[in-house]
Amino acid sequence: MEKNNGVSMSVVRRLPRYYRFLESLLRQGTKRISSHELSDMLGLTASQIRQDFNCFGGFGQQGYGYNVEMLYQAISGILGLHSLQKTILIGAGNLGRAILSYTNFKSKGFELIGVFDNASKLIGHTVGSYDILHTDQLHSFCNKHHPTVAILCIPQVSAEQLAPDLIALGIKGFWNFSHFDFSRNFPDVAVENVHLSDHLMTLSYKVNHL
Amino acid sequence: MEKNNGVSMSVVRRLPRYYRFLESLLRQGTKRISSHELSDMLGLTASQIRQDFNCFGGFGQQGYGYNVEMLYQAISGILGLHSLQKTILIGAGNLGRAILSYTNFKSKGFELIGVFDNASKLIGHTVGSYDILHTDQLHSFCNKHHPTVAILCIPQVSAEQLAPDLIALGIKGFWNFSHFDFSRNFPDVAVENVHLSDHLMTLSYKVNHL
Repeated sequence: MEKNNGVSMSVVRRLPRYYRFLESLLRQGTKRISSHELSDMLGLTASQIRQDFNCFGGFGQQGYGYNVEMLYQAISGILGLHSLQKTILIGAGNLGRAILSYTNFKSKGFELIGVFDNASKLIGHTVGSYDILHTDQLHSFCNKHHPTVAILCIPQVSAEQLAPDLIALGIKGFWNFSHFDFSRNFPDVAVENVHLSDHLMTLSYKVNHL
Repeated sequence: MEKNNGVSMSVVRRLPRYYRFLESLLRQGTKRISSHELSDMLGLTASQIRQDFNCFGGFGQQGYGYNVEMLYQAISGILGLHSLQKTILIGAGNLGRAILSYTNFKSKGFELIGVFDNASKLIGHTVGSYDILHTDQLHSFCNKHHPTVAILCIPQVSAEQLAPDLIALGIKGFWNFSHFDFSRNFPDVAVENVHLSDHLMTLSYKVNHL
């Protein structure tokens, strides 16, 4: 089973869901919640929720439920949302621009500081409040601003070519929309893959096997 | 473990990867490949690959390797890529438009037949070759054209409101970019979730726990 710091990735992947849910409880003014109430609302068993939280030392007192604000802050801390990672986006095509406009990076632990593309026609244009820079400038930019995360909205071949340079320049985390497989040659970087076309083919399987 | 038709979803989720890889082998003119060669190239064990293929009845003869074209066609068939599902996209904002322009639907088993939004300013505009229609027209459109799949690029609340109507109108599969959780109230539809902000928070966890 894939693990990260001794915690199973399936537990880690449930944390954003807890976080989002606690955020909505906070907005509604809910102060305290039991694992049974969480269980009803999230469609997980109460025992599963307690086990998940125990991976990080608990957070509640038996019989008293959880303080929503404390639990929210604790999970936010575990997810590292308070320590903004300086982030660059590479590939300012349709997908890159959608990711840029769609995502509230700061609330998720990232600070976007630069946008790059290799298409001459895009250079000098802006996307949101960012000037699109040429990928030729990656080296000087990274040496000056020290980003630690890169979002790759580029084809597999380009990702494969750029990966060693980016890692040498200090990038240690990738939000990877390309089909390039980091795990084979770069097992030590943090990678979160989003393979949209694989999702679509999986949906095709599911619809055809209903 | 999540299963679909007796096949574990972790096996199903590897199929698109095999499919993409075989497609690239075909382009290179490779006729035959052993599970050991596949294993080297994909970073999976040969035994894992054979086990995965055995879920669908094998496809190879011990010692002879796999015929690339046959394996490609077989996996394509299992994924259902040849039976185009009529598909509508709801939400023609940045994300919806990126998904539209980024994705080759037909090669993945889907035929996009309509794009909808509830923002008056978008109605009548086109995105790609599609006129954006108002969601008020969903009912008449679905009754006329019988789409079976919907791509939801809308907020959670809108997805929650639309879901029962869409299912009543014959939609049986959802590519769900919203945070609405179908599994609780609609366990019988096929859903593939893409929660971009959850991926970003998971990446934050990984980068902060390197």
